[in-house]
Amino acid sequence: MSAPLPGLADVEAAAERLHGVVRETPLLESDALNALVGGRLLCKAECLQRTGSFKLRGAYNTISQLAGQPVVAYSSGNHAQGVAAAAKLLGVPATIVMPADAPAIKIANTRALGAEIRLYDRAREVREEIGAEIARRTGAALVKPYDDPRIIAGQGTAGREAAEQLRAQGVVVDAALFPCGGGGLIAGCSMALAAAFPKLQIFAVEPEGFDDTARSLAAGERVANAEGRQSVCDALLAPMPGELTFALHQRYLAGGLAVSDAEVCRAMAAAFSHLKVVVEPGGAVALAAALSGRFEVRGRTVLVMLSGGNVDAGLFAEALRS
Amino acid sequence: MSAPLPGLADVEAAAERLHGVVRETPLLESDALNALVGGRLLCKAECLQRTGSFKLRGAYNTISQLAGQPVVAYSSGNHAQGVAAAAKLLGVPATIVMPADAPAIKIANTRALGAEIRLYDRAREVREEIGAEIARRTGAALVKPYDDPRIIAGQGTAGREAAEQLRAQGVVVDAALFPCGGGGLIAGCSMALAAAFPKLQIFAVEPEGFDDTARSLAAGERVANAEGRQSVCDALLAPMPGELTFALHQRYLAGGLAVSDAEVCRAMAAAFSHLKVVVEPGGAVALAAALSGRFEVRGRTVLVMLSGGNVDAGLFAEALRS
Repeated sequence: MSAPLPGLADVEAAAERLHGVVRETPLLESDALNALVGGRLLCKAECLQRTGSFKLRGAYNTISQLAGQPVVAYSSGNHAQGVAAAAKLLGVPATIVMPADAPAIKIANTRALGAEIRLYDRAREVREEIGAEIARRTGAALVKPYDDPRIIAGQGTAGREAAEQLRAQGVVVDAALFPCGGGGLIAGCSMALAAAFPKLQIFAVEPEGFDDTARSLAAGERVANAEGRQSVCDALLAPMPGELTFALHQRYLAGGLAVSDAEVCRAMAAAFSHLKVVVEPGGAVALAAALSGRFEVRGRTVLVMLSGGNVDAGLFAEALRS
Repeated sequence: MSAPLPGLADVEAAAERLHGVVRETPLLESDALNALVGGRLLCKAECLQRTGSFKLRGAYNTISQLAGQPVVAYSSGNHAQGVAAAAKLLGVPATIVMPADAPAIKIANTRALGAEIRLYDRAREVREEIGAEIARRTGAALVKPYDDPRIIAGQGTAGREAAEQLRAQGVVVDAALFPCGGGGLIAGCSMALAAAFPKLQIFAVEPEGFDDTARSLAAGERVANAEGRQSVCDALLAPMPGELTFALHQRYLAGGLAVSDAEVCRAMAAAFSHLKVVVEPGGAVALAAALSGRFEVRGRTVLVMLSGGNVDAGLFAEALRS
C-alpha cells in the first residue's frame, strides 16, 4: 500500500517550512556557454545549497513533521548530509547508513554534522535491511531517500524557487533537464514547473547503464537497471524508479536521456571554467546532456539543474583534465 | 592633476547604469567554515559575476559614459575581460594589452569576447606606454584598471549590493575583508559599506611581497612594492596604490594584512570543499586571511569578498592538493 501522491499544495507547504532554512540558490548563466550551444542555459545551482546539494530540502520537510522522533537514513552521501543537517537543525538524533566506498568528503561531512555513521559493504550487505533493523531497534523513523511524498514535496521547492526566479526575470523556458537517480527531485520540481510553464518539456537525465527512468517511461512500467554496471555518478545509482516518483514522472516528464562518464566529466570542467561552480558527477548530468548535444539546445531556453557539488578533490582534478 | 574623488552618489548612479547588466551575486555561507573559525563568514561571490570577476562593474560604468568611443585597456586578465564584455555589450571596439604570461583562460576568454589582444613581454615592455600609444594612434579612450572615479564607483556597486543583502537578512557585520591590488574594488565598496554599517572595520588583504596598500596606510603615503617578488595571485600585482584609491583607503580602511601563497591555495581548496565555488588565487586572499588566523574571526561576523574565479585548471588542481 503506497502513500498518496503529493501535489502542488504539498510543495507550497514545504516551501513555508523551509523558509529561512534553505538558501535561495542562484540561476547561473554564461555568455560563453550560451554561445557554445547556440541557445540559452539557465543553471539552477543547488550545489550552492547548504550541505552542498538539494537534499536538505526534502529531509527537513520530512523530519520537521516527525514531532521530535529520532531518524535513520541510508544514502551514498547527499541524502545523508541532508538528513544529518536537518536532524541537527531540529535537534533530533540521526543514524546514517552509508556505503564504505562513498566519497570521503560525503562521509566526513555527514559525521561533522553530528550524525552517527554505520558504514556497510555494498557487495555483501543490503542497506534497506540495515536501515530497517536500526529503525526497529531504536524506534527511529526511516527517512527514505526519494519514495516519500514529504521528500518529493521538499525537493520540489527547488523547482518552485527556479520558477519564481525565471518569472522575475521575465524568462519563459522551453525545456528543463534534471539529474535523476530515484527521481524525487525531478518529480517534485516537475509539479511546480509544469504549473508555472504549461508548455515546458521536462527530461530526466541519467548516467549510461543507470537509465532506468528513461527505459521505464518508454516501457510504461518500472524496470530496473542491469547489475554490474559502473558510473562516476555516485549520487545516481538507484536500482529503479520509486513507485511514487515514477507515477509523477509518467504524468509530467517528456522523456529521459543518458550521458556517458566522459560527457559528465567534460560538463564538470565546463562548469568550472564558465560558471565557476563545483559540480559533482551526478549533479552535472543535466548540463552534460545540454553540452554534449544529447539534448538539442539550439534556439531554445533551457533550465538545467546542477543538483550537487560534493566531490572529492582528486576526482574533480581528474575531470578538469578531460 | 588628478580627478575628483568619487562619492556615494556615484556608486548609486553606477548601480542604476548596471541594472540588468551585472548579476546580483550571492552571499555564500558554510556551517562547516563557520565552525572552523568560531565566527560567521559571509562570502560575496563575485567569482559568479559575468566574466568571472567584479571587473565588469567598473568597466561598464566607465564605457557607458564614453558616448561610443573605442576603448583600450591594459590588464593581466580580469579587467581585460570586464572591458571586453562591456565594450561588446555597448557595441564599441576594444583593444586589450595583456602580458604574454597571463593565465591562458583569461587571454582566451578576452579574445572570445571579441576584443583585439596585444600581448606584451612583462620584463621588456611597459604596458602603460603601449596603451597610451594605441590610444594616440586609434583615438581610443584608455579605461584604467583602478585609478578612475568611474571605475571605483562601478566596483563599489558590489559593496552596495552586499550591504543590501546583509540588511535584508538582518545581519550586522563587524568587519569586511577585501582582496586588494590597485585598490579600486575596496575603495568603492568601502563607501557603500561604511554608509550602511558605520562601525564596520574594513581591511585590505594582499599577497606577501605585494602589500603596498598595507605599508602605505602605515606610512601615511603611497609606497611601492619591492621589485622581483613573485606571487600566485596574478590579479593583485599592481606596483603601488592609485592616487584616488589610496585617498579613499586612508579615509575608510582600518588597515591591511598580507597572506602567503600557501594560505591562498588552502583558501581556494576550502572554497572548493565548503562553498562549492571556484575562486582564483587573487580572489581568495580575503578568505585566506580569515581561515589562516591572520585575521581573527572568532566571535565576529565578517564579510569576505571572493573577487574572481578565473583560474587555469592546472593551477586549481594544484591548489586542491594543498
